[in-house]
Amino acid sequence: MVEAVETMDGWYSLHDLRTIDWTAWKLASVEEREEAIAGFEKLLTKWDAVEEEKNGSHVLYKIVGQKADLIFMFLRPTMEELNDIETELNKSKLGEFLLPAHSYVSVVELSKYRPAKDGIDPETLPETQARLKPILPKWEHICFYPMDRRREAEENWYTLEKDVRGKLLYDHSKTGRKYAGKVKQIITGSIGLDDWEWGVTLFAHEPLQFKKIVYEMRFDEVSSRYGEFGEFFVGNHLPNESVASYLKI
Amino acid sequence: MVEAVETMDGWYSLHDLRTIDWTAWKLASVEEREEAIAGFEKLLTKWDAVEEEKNGSHVLYKIVGQKADLIFMFLRPTMEELNDIETELNKSKLGEFLLPAHSYVSVVELSKYRPAKDGIDPETLPETQARLKPILPKWEHICFYPMDRRREAEENWYTLEKDVRGKLLYDHSKTGRKYAGKVKQIITGSIGLDDWEWGVTLFAHEPLQFKKIVYEMRFDEVSSRYGEFGEFFVGNHLPNESVASYLKI
Amino acid sequence: MVEAVETMDGWYSLHDLRTIDWTAWKLASVEEREEAIAGFEKLLTKWDAVEEEKNGSHVLYKIVGQKADLIFMFLRPTMEELNDIETELNKSKLGEFLLPAHSYVSVVELSKYRPAKDGIDPETLPETQARLKPILPKWEHICFYPMDRRREAEENWYTLEKDVRGKLLYDHSKTGRKYAGKVKQIITGSIGLDDWEWGVTLFAHEPLQFKKIVYEMRFDEVSSRYGEFGEFFVGNHLPNESVASYLKI
Amino acid sequence: MVEAVETMDGWYSLHDLRTIDWTAWKLASVEEREEAIAGFEKLLTKWDAVEEEKNGSHVLYKIVGQKADLIFMFLRPTMEELNDIETELNKSKLGEFLLPAHSYVSVVELSKYRPAKDGIDPETLPETQARLKPILPKWEHICFYPMDRRREAEENWYTLEKDVRGKLLYDHSKTGRKYAGKVKQIITGSIGLDDWEWGVTLFAHEPLQFKKIVYEMRFDEVSSRYGEFGEFFVGNHLPNESVASYLKI
Amino acid sequence: MVEAVETMDGWYSLHDLRTIDWTAWKLASVEEREEAIAGFEKLLTKWDAVEEEKNGSHVLYKIVGQKADLIFMFLRPTMEELNDIETELNKSKLGEFLLPAHSYVSVVELSKYRPAKDGIDPETLPETQARLKPILPKWEHICFYPMDRRREAEENWYTLEKDVRGKLLYDHSKTGRKYAGKVKQIITGSIGLDDWEWGVTLFAHEPLQFKKIVYEMRFDEVSSRYGEFGEFFVGNHLPNESVASYLKI
Repeated sequence: MVEAVETMDGWYSLHDLRTIDWTAWKLASVEEREEAIAGFEKLLTKWDAVEEEKNGSHVLYKIVGQKADLIFMFLRPTMEELNDIETELNKSKLGEFLLPAHSYVSVVELSKYRPAKDGIDPETLPETQARLKPILPKWEHICFYPMDRRREAEENWYTLEKDVRGKLLYDHSKTGRKYAGKVKQIITGSIGLDDWEWGVTLFAHEPLQFKKIVYEMRFDEVSSRYGEFGEFFVGNHLPNESVASYLKI
Repeated sequence: MVEAVETMDGWYSLHDLRTIDWTAWKLASVEEREEAIAGFEKLLTKWDAVEEEKNGSHVLYKIVGQKADLIFMFLRPTMEELNDIETELNKSKLGEFLLPAHSYVSVVELSKYRPAKDGIDPETLPETQARLKPILPKWEHICFYPMDRRREAEENWYTLEKDVRGKLLYDHSKTGRKYAGKVKQIITGSIGLDDWEWGVTLFAHEPLQFKKIVYEMRFDEVSSRYGEFGEFFVGNHLPNESVASYLKI
Repeated sequence: MVEAVETMDGWYSLHDLRTIDWTAWKLASVEEREEAIAGFEKLLTKWDAVEEEKNGSHVLYKIVGQKADLIFMFLRPTMEELNDIETELNKSKLGEFLLPAHSYVSVVELSKYRPAKDGIDPETLPETQARLKPILPKWEHICFYPMDRRREAEENWYTLEKDVRGKLLYDHSKTGRKYAGKVKQIITGSIGLDDWEWGVTLFAHEPLQFKKIVYEMRFDEVSSRYGEFGEFFVGNHLPNESVASYLKI
Repeated sequence: MVEAVETMDGWYSLHDLRTIDWTAWKLASVEEREEAIAGFEKLLTKWDAVEEEKNGSHVLYKIVGQKADLIFMFLRPTMEELNDIETELNKSKLGEFLLPAHSYVSVVELSKYRPAKDGIDPETLPETQARLKPILPKWEHICFYPMDRRREAEENWYTLEKDVRGKLLYDHSKTGRKYAGKVKQIITGSIGLDDWEWGVTLFAHEPLQFKKIVYEMRFDEVSSRYGEFGEFFVGNHLPNESVASYLKI
Repeated sequence: MVEAVETMDGWYSLHDLRTIDWTAWKLASVEEREEAIAGFEKLLTKWDAVEEEKNGSHVLYKIVGQKADLIFMFLRPTMEELNDIETELNKSKLGEFLLPAHSYVSVVELSKYRPAKDGIDPETLPETQARLKPILPKWEHICFYPMDRRREAEENWYTLEKDVRGKLLYDHSKTGRKYAGKVKQIITGSIGLDDWEWGVTLFAHEPLQFKKIVYEMRFDEVSSRYGEFGEFFVGNHLPNESVASYLKI
């Protein structure tokens, strides 16, 4: 039947990308820069505490190329908290040197294409809850891109029967599983929240794995015939203890 | 027959999105900021009075992500009043710190796909008038996006018979009705007024409902085959009494 | 036969849209603002004199929404005069506060789809000349948008026979005629002059009529199958005597 | 056979469009403006000398509308010379007031669709050499636009046989020839050099001729089915002796 | 079979394009400019040393037209090194005058469409390693553009059998081989890393060869039916010893 599949939804997500205004940063006095770094480290500590309490999660990476310098990904139980985080960052001293580069609003999503086993709603399982409210990995590299399912006269995901879609996605997941241990993937849904239908965030120890998995998956029918992809952002991990030296002039 | 359906039209609508220039805002003196906030609160009070008199309505939300910081939606009986509102906002002290981010011009619209009952023109009914000149809800969350009906060789809304279109929209409305109490929807028409054909403004207590309703509706034939969607903006309510603290540095 | 139709062409046209830099405007001294307004009123007087002499025509409206604050439409016998007008505006004191927002270059156009009556070339008729060199109405509202005729494999205006095109346009004109007295339309051709093929400028006493006429016309085959539309701009008339108060801080 | 046609290639071409920063220009002192104009006139004299020596050619026009204020078209035997010209302009005093608006890189091109006559390679003929290294006309008006040949599943220029393409282009050239004396056309090739496949630069005594020729040609099959067009720029000639008065405040 | 081909991957690549802020550069003091040039020459020396050690490679060219002034192409064994290079450039004195214009992230790529000869994995061969970790040529001219393989209902590269793709690419390579000695080509893969699927960087002694090879290749079926191309950038070599004079005011 042509009908929406039910989704299970977890923490809300904000990808927040910023470009450093290096010229202004260099013009700032040593004191201003120290104040900005100290204030930012305090924010990082605060966000770490939230993560330790399992009330959310976040990561920070350096983007390669000119699309941005930094990418934050924040997960929180409510949309208000995401708003508070960006406002606090905007009001911070470092915020004066961070130009908006891109953002993405979504929510961690799993879909229920497969029937419940033994009548148990999968959403109630602890492993499902852990996947819906994940502590983000701090692997060496990140890759983020948004995507749609095609909706054209000849190839329209949204006029396919639900079990056909389920089958195509199942085949696709088998390609993904080959990369276990090499690539970790978080899917966030953004229909009704942002301009694309889904966000895909990948983590890897080796950036070549991003190319390998996305390339291999592009030959799966679900991608070759029904996938539309947006901008790709790729970056290197920036641990808290490296922030000051990264920003040092 | 392939012909336009008659519409009933109410108040004119302006969606006005702004990005706060936080760096300039922080550089302003405490006195300037106080003056700006006080002036803005006066505008809010003035607009509230218009709403109380039922001469229009408005809401203010904080956008999540970098597309904007604030979204205003204004409803007024005339286009001139909308122009006056934006000019007054632009001339205000706070206006100096609000960068244009996006806007949308439209008019509250209902369509007459169904025949008049008992020969009564539905436009004359009080409940219709209330829907055409609505007092906007102040629910916790807002979602705004514009949309078109597809006009391609293989799938063309504008070459479908009127009763076929009516049937597809009727089926679609049934999906909408499932969300009664969870999502409130205002449709505004913008053919001849702005770049898309319609604007959709949704209000919800829980932002997940935006994803659920838009996702489920995407499988309705009217959307899967004939819907084209623009940018999505999502935000959290900013009540008058929180404006000062939101802007506090 | 598949061939171009002959056109009759009148005055050259420049749509010139500007955004007011309100922040800079407020920073200017009272004297500077007075000088700017006085200089602008002098330009308006000069352009009015041209119109009185029937050597051209112009209008000025306030755009609703953030696409621009002002729209000028200038008609002149030569392209050089249009260039001179924009240069003079750019060099003027007010020009320092007017940011470019959009522009459109075209020429008033009528087409000769119908055969000459009694062997008289319609271009020689006084009523044709009046339509090719029109004094623009100063009605309360303006709507401007550019458009193309579709050129795709399945639906290609430019591979249709000339009489088929003529028939489709004739049917379309009947929809237009229903709005006589409510909407006044000026068609300007811009193939070879700007990015779209035609510009459409509508005037109305009531902005709802823009939506009604464009919506109804969209179901005409010439639009539903062969029309492609650009950005829509809508505005309220700004008469000379209101310029100073509109700009007053 | 489906194969590329051989081309004959002449001088390299740079279209360089600039917007004047009128506000900064007015803020400059009289001395600065005089220095800038004098320096620019020196550049013009230098470029004129190159043209007199037949080592290149150039023109300067004022663009109508907001896409730019000025368009330069430079022809030179090497790409290095084009680079030197823009660098010299950027470093000049006037360059401080010229914002980049658009540019286009290409090379004067003629194609060899027709077989050599009497075994003579047409490239060796003096008239061919004159067309490949043309002294640009200084007619009253210029029109520039880039274009592609369509490459879609149903209509693909690049899968047509060479003689079919030659025939379509030959028919097209007949339309062009009707405008002899009214419109002069320079075709420059830009595959591998810039974002479109060709640039078309037209010169006319009367700008209406741009509309007439482009409109009429759009019904030729080569355009109606295989032409894709970019932005159009149209302008009025700015002779050296008018530069100072054009820039006068 | 419809499956991804295995790739061999070498050094990571960053194309980094910058526009010089000539106005700010001219406003800088002679000392500042000298400091900036000296600092930049030091960076060049450092990068040269990396290249001599065969730990990477880089080139620097001047872009023709307004898309940028400079293009750097950096190759390094890791993504972190690419990040470090751009950060160091951003923090440098010259960096204050270099506006971001464009960038591209990819990795040198060869594909294994052909079966291993004599059971030897081609990746282990010294000549393959040399091609995966190439010392970039310093030829007079550069051309860079990104590309995709088409993924539409009627023409979809990703639903073609692997041997069909291999055959099409093999035919294509024969066109390329005709340009041996005239054009040197480096293919970098960017699926999962940047917005297009591949980057193509060409080097030539004569820029006309860029047009000739790209034009001729466009008639190969793999391009005419399956190629989608992005922006083209073309430039002239800027050797270290010319940097100071290029930047001299």
